[in-house]
Amino acid sequence: MHLPFLPFLAAAAPGHDSPGRVLLLLATAIVAAKVAGALAERWGQPAVLGELIAGILLGPSLFGILPAAGSDAGTVFAFLAELGVVLLLFEIGLETDLKAMFKVGPAALAVAAVGVALPFLLGFLFWKAGPHPQVASTVPLAATAIFVGATLTATSVGITARVLSDLGRLGTPEARIIVGAAVIDDVLGLVILSVVSTMAMGGVVTATGVGQILVVAVGFLVAAVVIGKQLAPHLFTFVARIKSREVVILAAISFCFLLGGLAELAGSALIIGAFAAGIILSGTDQFDIIEERVKPVVALFTPIFFVHVGGAVDLHLLDPARPGGGGVLWVALALTFLAVLGKLAAGWAAPWIPFDRLTVGVGMIPRGEVGLIFAEIGRRTGVLGAEVFNAVLLMVLVTTFLAPVLLKRVAGRGPRPAAA
Amino acid sequence: MHLPFLPFLAAAAPGHDSPGRVLLLLATAIVAAKVAGALAERWGQPAVLGELIAGILLGPSLFGILPAAGSDAGTVFAFLAELGVVLLLFEIGLETDLKAMFKVGPAALAVAAVGVALPFLLGFLFWKAGPHPQVASTVPLAATAIFVGATLTATSVGITARVLSDLGRLGTPEARIIVGAAVIDDVLGLVILSVVSTMAMGGVVTATGVGQILVVAVGFLVAAVVIGKQLAPHLFTFVARIKSREVVILAAISFCFLLGGLAELAGSALIIGAFAAGIILSGTDQFDIIEERVKPVVALFTPIFFVHVGGAVDLHLLDPARPGGGGVLWVALALTFLAVLGKLAAGWAAPWIPFDRLTVGVGMIPRGEVGLIFAEIGRRTGVLGAEVFNAVLLMVLVTTFLAPVLLKRVAGRGPRPAAA
Repeated sequence: MHLPFLPFLAAAAPGHDSPGRVLLLLATAIVAAKVAGALAERWGQPAVLGELIAGILLGPSLFGILPAAGSDAGTVFAFLAELGVVLLLFEIGLETDLKAMFKVGPAALAVAAVGVALPFLLGFLFWKAGPHPQVASTVPLAATAIFVGATLTATSVGITARVLSDLGRLGTPEARIIVGAAVIDDVLGLVILSVVSTMAMGGVVTATGVGQILVVAVGFLVAAVVIGKQLAPHLFTFVARIKSREVVILAAISFCFLLGGLAELAGSALIIGAFAAGIILSGTDQFDIIEERVKPVVALFTPIFFVHVGGAVDLHLLDPARPGGGGVLWVALALTFLAVLGKLAAGWAAPWIPFDRLTVGVGMIPRGEVGLIFAEIGRRTGVLGAEVFNAVLLMVLVTTFLAPVLLKRVAGRGPRPAAA
Repeated sequence: MHLPFLPFLAAAAPGHDSPGRVLLLLATAIVAAKVAGALAERWGQPAVLGELIAGILLGPSLFGILPAAGSDAGTVFAFLAELGVVLLLFEIGLETDLKAMFKVGPAALAVAAVGVALPFLLGFLFWKAGPHPQVASTVPLAATAIFVGATLTATSVGITARVLSDLGRLGTPEARIIVGAAVIDDVLGLVILSVVSTMAMGGVVTATGVGQILVVAVGFLVAAVVIGKQLAPHLFTFVARIKSREVVILAAISFCFLLGGLAELAGSALIIGAFAAGIILSGTDQFDIIEERVKPVVALFTPIFFVHVGGAVDLHLLDPARPGGGGVLWVALALTFLAVLGKLAAGWAAPWIPFDRLTVGVGMIPRGEVGLIFAEIGRRTGVLGAEVFNAVLLMVLVTTFLAPVLLKRVAGRGPRPAAA
């Protein structure tokens, strides 16, 4: 029997996929991500690790059921993954407490600054100097080096906060410094991301160009948050008065899409806009409703992003028996070493303020979802060739895997604090 | 400044749209739909009417900002609209009470049967016999006639139930008959839809073909519901035990996608599978969580569907000054007359059971979203040419607009029942 129904893609060209196939694909991706995530958590690992591994398994390395880029299913899947990042950054923005961020003060700022600058420098210099796998010849070496450096700067606030919460140690000064620094890192990381990706597309690396992009990214973020903080409460009070909870959440998500689109139009990043939208709405009276209702939508699309990113991993490239495969493994190992070193050292920033430096340093290690976003953009723009992308991804995986294991040992040393 | 970010569609071909543009488009569509829906409700009309009109305004008739079919943005938008219908039918399934459906008994069944058979016959005969606008020559006349008849069979349970609820009359016997018949109509409609769309794609109309499809559609629905009712409670009790609320809702939506995909694979309709998934999950212990958490997701995507359908309306085709435009208006008027007549007459079914026949007949009039799904599939498969599609759409709009107005006058006559 023919498969006839609702052939929304059946325009004319061959290779069109039925919507039923796309739905089955989505169901498979979501279930696989959640099962792998639950298994990872059962084994004391962050769920995101499992979701990535699910993507690797569904990708070309093993099952090969993820759609090819360029097919209709691939286009839809890539867009839904994109939607996943945008919504994830929106949620992170929603949960970012601007006041608390300003309060954590000098220690967090110093840790964040060193934790961004040092890994960036280490990664940049390593790539500029060292032997490395071949990359696309159209991309200048400096651009790739900057991108490699940038992928090392991220800190995943989600993973660290979750581990500290599991240990009952979110109340310690170290935890506050780590979370504060990780949030500042998110903002710095987004700015760096905007800079490097714009540069990557232009291909030209100039000081004025970097300055310009930096000004646009920071300027958009600041302007959006400042203006938004004034207007959004009135807008959402009005929206909430008209109708039901569904209208509030639709308005919130539309607001996120709108700021994302505007950020892109302004020459900055979609996710900068989404993050700004989250920060703005975190201050409205409707925050509780928005956060509660946004979670299912975020939960639906973010696994698609992680599966999509994991699906870009080709394990064959890491096969040491393959010509050049050993090189990729070596690069991955070196990047991981630099990634851990750079963040650990950040623990020793601000020497005039007393805190447990090892705990803070270890807490900054996981790259998590932000590192993946960097890697994915590098891959899509072609600045990171397939080999480098896989090395970077392995670095992200290993740091994300390592951090909870180490943090449990290091942060669990002393007695539990009285405050939960 | 260039627009460089996350160029997920920037593979190679021209005409690729940036994700930011798609996000702005989605934000525009959702906001326009909700504003128009709120205005419609303020004027005592169902929200769906406003959302359709928003689509007409954003479409080629006026602003022309909806993406063209075939572009990447168009592909993504069409898929999201598709997702909207699938989720809408999933929600309708969730809210369908199988037991109550069996209880409403002979009256509802008789009203539903007449309310499906009579409009279908009227539409079919009208199209077979009457003069009508030109349709694509590759489509047999009988196929189009069957489709036109099918579009007249739907009843929108949502709109009628909402109006009766607003009038405080959901407790009357008439209301129970209307809602029961409308639910049965949904099931019959879905089966008819599956039959006609399969036929439309094959192009051949044979009795064995129709029988085969009918058996598959009913068989899939019955088998899925019977088997699902046994397995799903265990599955979801297991899922709910592992983890948080988000996992339950992800499992529910994946289940909906899975059954939709399987229904298509079996040769039936996506929405039959989604509807079956909803009915199955309405019996699980996790129903409350699922329903609560599914609503924001449904609310996000269904407006996209209505805007997408409204966007297919080309008001220029209805312009009486255009050659043939008068014909379209005439056909729309005739179809509307038959649509109202057929459903009104259904009120006089089951003459041995006493109830207010005018109220029931009027309550069956609105075609609503189910009528739109029919029309849209007819348009996509090419069975309904642009002129017929616009006539059918006008019929859906007018019946949907008319029903609440009439129902208020007719059902509001007597005193309010004691039971709310």
